Amino acid sequence: MRSTYLALASLASIATPVLGQTFQRLGGCPTLGCVFPPDQAEFLAGAKFDIRLEVHAPVNGSEAFNNGVPDENFSLQISNNKGYSASITDFFQTPDTTVEKWNFTWYEDLFALDAKTPTEVNVASKAYRSLSLSEPGEYTATLKYYDGQETVARWTVREPCEKPLVKNVILFIGDGMPQSAITAARLLAHKQINGKYQSTMQLDKMDGVGLQMTHSMDTFITDSANSATAIMTGHKSTVNALGVYRDSSPNPFDDPKVETIAELFHRQRGGKVGIVSTAFLADATPASLVAHTRDRGQYAPITEMYLNGVTSNYSDWTSWSGPDVLLGGGAEQWIAGSGSPGKKDYYEVFRQAGYQVVNDKDQLASADASQRTLGVFSQSNMAKWIDREIFPQNLPNITKSPTGNGTAVNQPGLAEMTLKAIDVLHSRSGDKGFFLMSEAASIDKMFHAMDYDRALGELLELDDTVRQTIAHLETIGELDETLIVVTADHAHGFDVFGSSDSKYMTAKDDDRVKRSAIGIYESSGHSEYQVAKGSRPDNETIVYGDQGPNFPVQWDPRYTIAAGFGAHPDVQESYSIAKNGPRLPAITQNGTAYANPADKPDGYLTNGTIPADQTQGIHSLQDVPIFTKGKPEAVAVFRGVMENTDIFFHMAKVLGLGSTDRDQNKGNGKGKDNKA
Amino acid sequence: MRSTYLALASLASIATPVLGQTFQRLGGCPTLGCVFPPDQAEFLAGAKFDIRLEVHAPVNGSEAFNNGVPDENFSLQISNNKGYSASITDFFQTPDTTVEKWNFTWYEDLFALDAKTPTEVNVASKAYRSLSLSEPGEYTATLKYYDGQETVARWTVREPCEKPLVKNVILFIGDGMPQSAITAARLLAHKQINGKYQSTMQLDKMDGVGLQMTHSMDTFITDSANSATAIMTGHKSTVNALGVYRDSSPNPFDDPKVETIAELFHRQRGGKVGIVSTAFLADATPASLVAHTRDRGQYAPITEMYLNGVTSNYSDWTSWSGPDVLLGGGAEQWIAGSGSPGKKDYYEVFRQAGYQVVNDKDQLASADASQRTLGVFSQSNMAKWIDREIFPQNLPNITKSPTGNGTAVNQPGLAEMTLKAIDVLHSRSGDKGFFLMSEAASIDKMFHAMDYDRALGELLELDDTVRQTIAHLETIGELDETLIVVTADHAHGFDVFGSSDSKYMTAKDDDRVKRSAIGIYESSGHSEYQVAKGSRPDNETIVYGDQGPNFPVQWDPRYTIAAGFGAHPDVQESYSIAKNGPRLPAITQNGTAYANPADKPDGYLTNGTIPADQTQGIHSLQDVPIFTKGKPEAVAVFRGVMENTDIFFHMAKVLGLGSTDRDQNKGNGKGKDNKA
Repeated sequence: MRSTYLALASLASIATPVLGQTFQRLGGCPTLGCVFPPDQAEFLAGAKFDIRLEVHAPVNGSEAFNNGVPDENFSLQISNNKGYSASITDFFQTPDTTVEKWNFTWYEDLFALDAKTPTEVNVASKAYRSLSLSEPGEYTATLKYYDGQETVARWTVREPCEKPLVKNVILFIGDGMPQSAITAARLLAHKQINGKYQSTMQLDKMDGVGLQMTHSMDTFITDSANSATAIMTGHKSTVNALGVYRDSSPNPFDDPKVETIAELFHRQRGGKVGIVSTAFLADATPASLVAHTRDRGQYAPITEMYLNGVTSNYSDWTSWSGPDVLLGGGAEQWIAGSGSPGKKDYYEVFRQAGYQVVNDKDQLASADASQRTLGVFSQSNMAKWIDREIFPQNLPNITKSPTGNGTAVNQPGLAEMTLKAIDVLHSRSGDKGFFLMSEAASIDKMFHAMDYDRALGELLELDDTVRQTIAHLETIGELDETLIVVTADHAHGFDVFGSSDSKYMTAKDDDRVKRSAIGIYESSGHSEYQVAKGSRPDNETIVYGDQGPNFPVQWDPRYTIAAGFGAHPDVQESYSIAKNGPRLPAITQNGTAYANPADKPDGYLTNGTIPADQTQGIHSLQDVPIFTKGKPEAVAVFRGVMENTDIFFHMAKVLGLGSTDRDQNKGNGKGKDNKA
Repeated sequence: MRSTYLALASLASIATPVLGQTFQRLGGCPTLGCVFPPDQAEFLAGAKFDIRLEVHAPVNGSEAFNNGVPDENFSLQISNNKGYSASITDFFQTPDTTVEKWNFTWYEDLFALDAKTPTEVNVASKAYRSLSLSEPGEYTATLKYYDGQETVARWTVREPCEKPLVKNVILFIGDGMPQSAITAARLLAHKQINGKYQSTMQLDKMDGVGLQMTHSMDTFITDSANSATAIMTGHKSTVNALGVYRDSSPNPFDDPKVETIAELFHRQRGGKVGIVSTAFLADATPASLVAHTRDRGQYAPITEMYLNGVTSNYSDWTSWSGPDVLLGGGAEQWIAGSGSPGKKDYYEVFRQAGYQVVNDKDQLASADASQRTLGVFSQSNMAKWIDREIFPQNLPNITKSPTGNGTAVNQPGLAEMTLKAIDVLHSRSGDKGFFLMSEAASIDKMFHAMDYDRALGELLELDDTVRQTIAHLETIGELDETLIVVTADHAHGFDVFGSSDSKYMTAKDDDRVKRSAIGIYESSGHSEYQVAKGSRPDNETIVYGDQGPNFPVQWDPRYTIAAGFGAHPDVQESYSIAKNGPRLPAITQNGTAYANPADKPDGYLTNGTIPADQTQGIHSLQDVPIFTKGKPEAVAVFRGVMENTDIFFHMAKVLGLGSTDRDQNKGNGKGKDNKA
């Protein structure tokens, strides 16, 4: 056998693959053997997961090995910290599976991409489905391959909570909402006098403040699928992946799954689940509660998973028959056609599954809270708060009917959707409790479009929704038994840096002269967004105490905020609000992106800092805040600086999820009975 | 009389001055009558302050009034919430003062600046010095002028703390340190495996996490003088102002003062004060503990104030005879010459006042901890951690001797200075306790230079200093009696947005092609700063647990982080570290700034977004984090989202400062004896 693996020694001495590469052979797999869940994975006792093992044989490139023939005789040995060690099949008392084989290609770096010299990799793999570990503690999973090579995954199984701390959890996600955006929203919506805010955001008043780190499994910049997976499952994952670790197979639905908080809450407690988003419903964040695919773009299958859960032949996964309430945009997946599952009328499919269907704000308001409810209010993403509330004349041009042709000018906002969702869940959950995820999706979408006015409008709508939610929970008697968590899934590198005199900027022609309109430091002045046009800034307009409207009085003052992004495409910027609808900052011509000449024509041009084919702003690294309100013992769980995956474990803890009861869990690890 | 003020009615109807202007007649004074401390000011019971009243008569411009003749017969009436109301002289039992008169000019907007048409304002004013309010509660101070005009300032006096919660406070300020910078520093200095950090920052491990808002009195973007004043005195102020509200007089030393935490701690408790900074010592943040001037640029007078406090003829202010330990850079103010007070040898002046003087790292190490200590280790700002530790060959070129000619290659770092300061304070404070402010000043200075590698080096040195401080306090038995607070004074709009393949960027010529080197999302990869050059990314280099060096293993990997700023001058960026010393991103030619062609020549050019005469990056709006460690009851004081001024009140609370004892306070408000 040794001679087969002769390349090994030379590999160790000459090849120096690095972790920080632009491309990766496979995330989470720096060596030629891959174990998913990978090293450092954490599990809640009793939560379900799949295992995927891969052995790679690169045919060419810096890692070329064994003439491209992958070892098919690999094995996985699992040990616990009580001294018990067994093969995967013995450990989980699960039947062995057959070897799968495939190949894939990748580029080792940008030079290889330019030269069109991909590296080919042959793969041998096995998958084991629907397992769980019931005994808290440390485990090692050792993949042995190529006659002596090992890849070790160190796993930790966390203790389940003895008993629930609260009955309900409401998780608000401000998609792409860093603290810098919250600060900017406060500046626009809340009046200060001599630097002291007279009212503050609801987020400023929460009981607990913490920070979460959004680093993903294989990249330090995450997307919303990846980070939502971390929050909903406790497992770090990969860009575009939902509820799975990404494997290298061609099939986007066979990747190793991990159970979501919604699935676990439904399976273990029979609790009711609600999902609300201002995005199209098949988008990553709402989908993260039910979907298991490494490709967030699989909109039709994701929509089918909303109703039926994982129905492929890959496993007997958690049974799932739909959330009790599902509200948002994205009618393309419900209107019979190319976007819907099986091209069916999916409204009808949901109706047959017992859902009432509503398609506008009025229907939502009058919907029967005792029934399971599907609300789809637009095609694509829902209208933005600013277009709904400030520039409603834009709606006919930028909305499309959720039922077919026409417009969708009568859309509810996040607050209306969230409060109705609470009513449905309150009505239907009884003493089993509910879990509601409510997403302000277009904070992110408008930051991508560099339309920070609209992003801040969405953020203020989120803040107002949290405020209304607290009041509503109090009214219906659920406040004491509910933990409210508000956080973001990742940041944008956005910040306010001064003011802009829009009159001066418009009056000047030269771009370098226009820049003199920017007021920095002592010239930044006060926010004018709380001063009505034409009014005097004296005591007449001063509102003391927390009595403000919590939204700007005007969005188009002469002196606007000036804000920017740490990374951006070519763009023209005037710092005044786009009045005709969301911005389109850059457009593509001949495969490369340039500033859109129709966007902010009074502004000045700045060339981009990211790959020249990008037309939008991008995500960034910074930790995002996490705010909580509820019982002190539940709030205390979320304090400090945490991994985004901790949010899953913290939510599971306050809801009393997880189980050390082996009998309830098929394919459960034997560690419990084999103490050393 | 009425006819004299005829212009009033028309002013109210036609003039619409706005709060958000590029220029302001006087911050905190939107009407023609000004009261400092202004509306919404908060006071600690027993803390000293001055009152400044101004009446403005604009000669020309949109506010022109009364032919430019200011009312000299203005009066201030003060009322408490117990029903007592009296004139200022009766209320404070303080003699009346004489009217001062002056004039000043300002520009109403950028068009007026371009046209060189200033507005002239004549002023009548009085000042009342060294007052205090001993009775907690609400007050109104009403300035009456122009026969019927009123400007009302609503003041709040906060309760003093019954008794100290801790003996000592150590306040670390990371100047210009947003959470985005802490996140980036973590990415460089701490290893993660599959997304899970194996070690974390000391800041990540503190007991409490909160957020502070940095909005200043008259602008939403602050500088370090302004924000340090807020933190040290509890009063929001103005850009460039230290320990005062800015008035409109020509004299930069007659502005109305507010007492600092150091002065109060010294006056009320006899506690010992230490000041440490990596900046020149006359810089804003260290100066904020002792200086009272609206012009932070008054370096020599500030240096004199370090030793003697306020010695002008304006008041009998808190007596002050110097901090017990003062360590940093800025020898220009100590070497006899144009920069030192009275052109004297200020080392000698300090020696005669009983200080031992040290000028390098070795002298600092061997200094007698029982003596008052002045340490000045360089001219200008001290050397940066990266130049001291990674590129020491730069030091001869970029340092200047603290004693005269020559270099300063043997400088201590923030940790050595802080630990020695603790030893001096510990040795000298006995049971009276100490207050130490330790500033990592060059996080800000290097962000201004867009040299984020060096900024992050400084941040990591701060984090390491906090770590060492905790260990040292434990060793000397002071940990239990010390509250550690770590915060920033303001942010920079900085964030990491991806990685950069430096090899690819260097190999390409065209700027738009170079941008392809940037890896975003799934191409951002892992940080390579924790992987030694040439090593393999396998288990050999993995360190589990919190055992890392807490600094990068290398600073110049092939795949660097790519980070940017929301606002910047014209700049060239390659994302690789500047090896020969701090960056100089832009240079001025003919009064306008252009990217420095010698800076990051392998990078691509981006045009600026701020006024074209700016050569540096600027501050930003976002809230900054505040971390605390200590007794739970002291940590609990700092939780949540707070104003920067709250930090003063919180520190005063844990130190048990403030007093309702009227007899101890000259010029004390009478409200206490005059309950309704």
